Parts: sequence; structure tokens; C-alpha cells
Amino acid sequence: MKHLLSVLVENNPGVLRKVAGLFSRRGYNIDSLVVSETEDNKVSRMTIAVHGDDQILEQVMKQLAKLVDVIRVDDVTKKRTVSRQLLLVKVKANLETRVHIIQTMDVFKARITHIGEEHLIVEATGEGSKINAIIETLRPYGIIELVKTGLISMLREDDLSNPEKE
Amino acid sequence: MKHLLSVLVENNPGVLRKVAGLFSRRGYNIDSLVVSETEDNKVSRMTIAVHGDDQILEQVMKQLAKLVDVIRVDDVTKKRTVSRQLLLVKVKANLETRVHIIQTMDVFKARITHIGEEHLIVEATGEGSKINAIIETLRPYGIIELVKTGLISMLREDDLSNPEKE
Repeated sequence: MKHLLSVLVENNPGVLRKVAGLFSRRGYNIDSLVVSETEDNKVSRMTIAVHGDDQILEQVMKQLAKLVDVIRVDDVTKKRTVSRQLLLVKVKANLETRVHIIQTMDVFKARITHIGEEHLIVEATGEGSKINAIIETLRPYGIIELVKTGLISMLREDDLSNPEKE
Repeated sequence: MKHLLSVLVENNPGVLRKVAGLFSRRGYNIDSLVVSETEDNKVSRMTIAVHGDDQILEQVMKQLAKLVDVIRVDDVTKKRTVSRQLLLVKVKANLETRVHIIQTMDVFKARITHIGEEHLIVEATGEGSKINAIIETLRPYGIIELVKTGLISMLREDDLSNPEKE
């Protein structure tokens, strides 16, 4: 099953290597990973999308929590969250198809961030399924390049267990 | 100096640990890191924002390129790119301040993705400086939680050295 983990860590060199090592030693697949700063410059947040055996994941999470640099581990998969990822796609576009693409992307509230002579760059945000729909819509025109971030997420409700409040 | 690296890697368990290890062994600071799938499900892309000594970075990049799992390393810092990161912010909002925040965020083309009784969740994309401006604009209202991805980037022009074309 797919899981989305939110891990708050002390911003020390080596912490990423340790966290990544815990997953790789068990052959656990990381689908995407986002490491970024938080409001506190000593603390980073890792948002890790994984899939695999649930029991092994439970063990990995326990071991994660034991690492000195790890402040907090949450499995936010089943919580009520806003989850988003960011997509950039460079797609082939000539004078004729350019307008088609722009109008279609408008339906997805995606933005055109660059218009070249023979291509466009499209920027979009959304949950995984919307991002995939945008990619499939663009594919027939010819995708030149594609970059996306992993998912990041935020609990919808104020929550006493909110890590930022502690 | 700040650098943005784009690293294409074989999607094997352990590759993240190896890449992270190369930086941490030299005490090199990773500001943000995004690992995500590409069009080819055997290949992942890491976009790594770092800062520190340029000569050490050059050595790290050479060592990265030698790793078996690494297909290609590019320093895209000085290239003409579209660079974007994604921000989610949960900010305090009552009946009075809610409208102020919504109107202000509209100037940044940021979106309100959730309205709670006493908070809003704002979603925004942009380059680093725009994202920082949004955060500073929201700060006086009271930031409850903040998550952002690292930067991802895409070359503006079709380029024969485009990694996706090889």
C-alpha cells in the first residue's frame, strides 16, 4: 500500500543519508522525497512517499523515530490533508497546437510559464491524479521534458498533534 | 555560492543514500532536495539546492558522476531556466482577516485551498524570492504551519544537451 510520511528532522549533515539508509537496507521503495526548510532553520521536513509491505513500514517508522536527528514521524496517509505536488512539463507546440494546449491547460488551472518557438513550458499543481491527467492530456502533443516534485501535505484542521505547535 | 544541481539516477534502492553520503561526508549543506519519477520509471531525477565552497562542489559533482547509478549531473545554476517551488501555508484567519488574506494572496496568484473556522491553507508556486515574499506577507496574521518543496527547474530553450533527449 502507498503511504505518505512526514518526518521532522534536525538539520544536520548526514541525516538524509541515515534516513535514506533505513529504507534502502530493507529494500523499501521510495517513490518520491521532498526535503525542505521549515520556519525553524534548524529543522527540516522530509515528506516521503513510499509503497510496500505495511509491517516492514511500521518497523522502519519505529527505527526512524529512534534516530537522534529525528524529531517526529507521522504517517499522514489516512489523515484529512491537503496534498499537492508541482509539475513542470516542456511540450512541443507549433503555431497551430499552441492555442489548443493553452486552452486545455486552462481547464486544469495550469499556467504557461514559457513560450518558445516550438515548445511551451506548463506549470501545474495538484494531487497525484490531477497531475497524471495533465501529463496524459499533454502526451499526444509530444512531451520533451518533465520534472515534478514529490507530494507535500498539510493537515486540514488545526490539530493538537500538529508538529509545528510543539 | 548557491547552486542548483539536476542529477538523473537509476531508480535503485540505495542510490539516495549514496548521493546524500557524498555531500554529508564533506559537510556540504543541502538546502533542499527533490527526488521524483521521470517519464521513464527506471530513472529518477534529483534536484538538489546546495550552498558552500565552489571547489568542493566541483569535486562532489565529479564523484557523483562516477557513481554507477548516476546517469548525468548538471549544474543548472547559471542556465536560463524556469525554476519553481511549491508552498503550502496554514495561516490564522478570522472572519475579519480572511478577506484581507484572500485579496492579498490574489496579487501573488496564490490559491486558497482550504478554509477552516480559524485558519486558511494557502497554496503558491514561484521562484524562491516570490515564495519568501508570500511568507513574509502572511507572517503578521500568524503562521500555524508551513511546508514547501525544494526548487525544481527546467531549461527554457530546447537544448541539444537536454538529458531527456539522449
